[in-house]
Amino acid sequence: MDIELVLVKYARLVDHFILEHLSGTPESLYQAALHLVKAGGKRLRPAIAMLVARMLGGIEAESRALPLAAAIEVSHTFTLIHDDIMDRDDYRRGVPTVHKLWGESWAILAGDLLHAYAYKFIVSSVDHGLSKGEAHEAMKVLTTAGIKVSRGQAYDLLFEKTLDVTVADYLDMVYHKTGAMMEASAKLGAVAARAESEVVELLGQYGSLLGVAFQVRDDYLGMFGDPEKTGKPIYSDLRRGKKTLLAIYALSKLKGEEREFLVKLLDPNTPKSLEDLERGAMLVKESGAVDEALRLSRVYADRAKEILLSLRNVVNEDAREALLVLTEYAITRDR
Amino acid sequence: MDIELVLVKYARLVDHFILEHLSGTPESLYQAALHLVKAGGKRLRPAIAMLVARMLGGIEAESRALPLAAAIEVSHTFTLIHDDIMDRDDYRRGVPTVHKLWGESWAILAGDLLHAYAYKFIVSSVDHGLSKGEAHEAMKVLTTAGIKVSRGQAYDLLFEKTLDVTVADYLDMVYHKTGAMMEASAKLGAVAARAESEVVELLGQYGSLLGVAFQVRDDYLGMFGDPEKTGKPIYSDLRRGKKTLLAIYALSKLKGEEREFLVKLLDPNTPKSLEDLERGAMLVKESGAVDEALRLSRVYADRAKEILLSLRNVVNEDAREALLVLTEYAITRDR
Repeated sequence: MDIELVLVKYARLVDHFILEHLSGTPESLYQAALHLVKAGGKRLRPAIAMLVARMLGGIEAESRALPLAAAIEVSHTFTLIHDDIMDRDDYRRGVPTVHKLWGESWAILAGDLLHAYAYKFIVSSVDHGLSKGEAHEAMKVLTTAGIKVSRGQAYDLLFEKTLDVTVADYLDMVYHKTGAMMEASAKLGAVAARAESEVVELLGQYGSLLGVAFQVRDDYLGMFGDPEKTGKPIYSDLRRGKKTLLAIYALSKLKGEEREFLVKLLDPNTPKSLEDLERGAMLVKESGAVDEALRLSRVYADRAKEILLSLRNVVNEDAREALLVLTEYAITRDR
Repeated sequence: MDIELVLVKYARLVDHFILEHLSGTPESLYQAALHLVKAGGKRLRPAIAMLVARMLGGIEAESRALPLAAAIEVSHTFTLIHDDIMDRDDYRRGVPTVHKLWGESWAILAGDLLHAYAYKFIVSSVDHGLSKGEAHEAMKVLTTAGIKVSRGQAYDLLFEKTLDVTVADYLDMVYHKTGAMMEASAKLGAVAARAESEVVELLGQYGSLLGVAFQVRDDYLGMFGDPEKTGKPIYSDLRRGKKTLLAIYALSKLKGEEREFLVKLLDPNTPKSLEDLERGAMLVKESGAVDEALRLSRVYADRAKEILLSLRNVVNEDAREALLVLTEYAITRDR
């Protein structure tokens, strides 16, 4: 199964929904809000929602899940726009970020607009076959995730300023920052499929494990990926002093002058040449941190797969298979 | 009736709800989010929601309205925090703004957090006596308002850069920026009272008329109010080139050198001394713009009152009376 083709299929459906329902004035505000949507992206979150719905409830559930999948995607996009302001990132998905093109005020507003639309899309799910009770469940899921994402980003920023970040701290931060939205994606799919609450919770666990595994791969790609494929500048995390799993592991393994070099490099205030950053990445690799990080992402992905395999009452085995492949993709992808 | 005492009563109830339900980590993020809540404020929006609920459904409806009133207040606070970043305002409610104290990233995140909590509070209304269908109605009201507020703020910023703003443009901008949230406040109160949809719509009209009237007074206080009472620096709108109703009227009345002076003053890039700003305010007053603006706010407030007086099936006349007084207060207040 070519998972990228599956993702493209769902991307088309979800993008169509978003573009159809997201228009208004002033036009430049809507252009700014849709900029990153139009720039592409993997659409992993909506695909999770749609596939979970299909797996548990067949194609009717999948079509009910569409507004929820769109809600997750615009909510994710809103966080990207705001995070890019805070992290001063200039590129995303291969294009300049929203604040680079339209300025900060427009980026703040475009994010706020998408945030409100995410909830509006959930409200609109009653026009796509969900009951008001089910829409209420979906709303509960998205508000819970929305709060966690803000908290996770806050921890991410706080960790820039300290070396005192353990693997447990990292996992908690990453669960909030990335896991919570994938948890919500899977739960929303289960809600659309009218799954029992225990099954909704189980799918939530699947999503949060997948999210953490995904983020560890993201950290890896940020240091060793091909910017042409990731669409993001390389070494951005190192520049900002982000406490990625790679950085945390490397700090715990390196000694003496090498550790001191990395400590200094991770200070956001240290001016850094490309040579410094390349040496930092090399030290990280030589410390064994890459192997350890990828091993941990494997553990999380395997636990996520076990949950998928444990499910009874699956009505569509192809969708289960696609989710298994998607989970593997999350930790092996190059983009 | 002392309307300020009524407002204090509802402020206590709503603040208690907000502070009880809004806690978490990292602590500094929650402190930033609650900073403007703790700084006070009139709490006009939650009072409107609570009074409308009481007017149409008695004290039981009022107690059902509490989470909705809290949702409106935190949603309003979120927009204040983000607007202050965009407008580079240093003071609000007599205290330094959130981005001044915690920096921009924290202000963006604190706003996003409150935005998510607003929807969470609506979700929680089912624990306070609303049905899931009623909570769904409330959610529809708040998402609609949330989208309008972002659009209104966008127009407000766009208008800074042009002199080509008509009174109609202003009224449309202000309806989105301020009217929509007051419309939502009144509608949420009506939803909590289980009013019929025509009555909900009528109360929405009341709120939007009140909102526009309120904003015109706000423009006036920004130029001629006492900063000790308003809690905001004076002439902030003039400095930023905001197209307030006062500025639009004055531009249409003034001629020759006086008009040129005001045009130049309204260019955000023109450096301005306090003397310049005082002369600008004097020209605005002498042009007759103040009288015209206050006359228009009177027209809107009177139309809002007529809606209140037209209502049948009012179960609590004291609440109607309080809303009438509150409407008058909105256009005569000094703070």
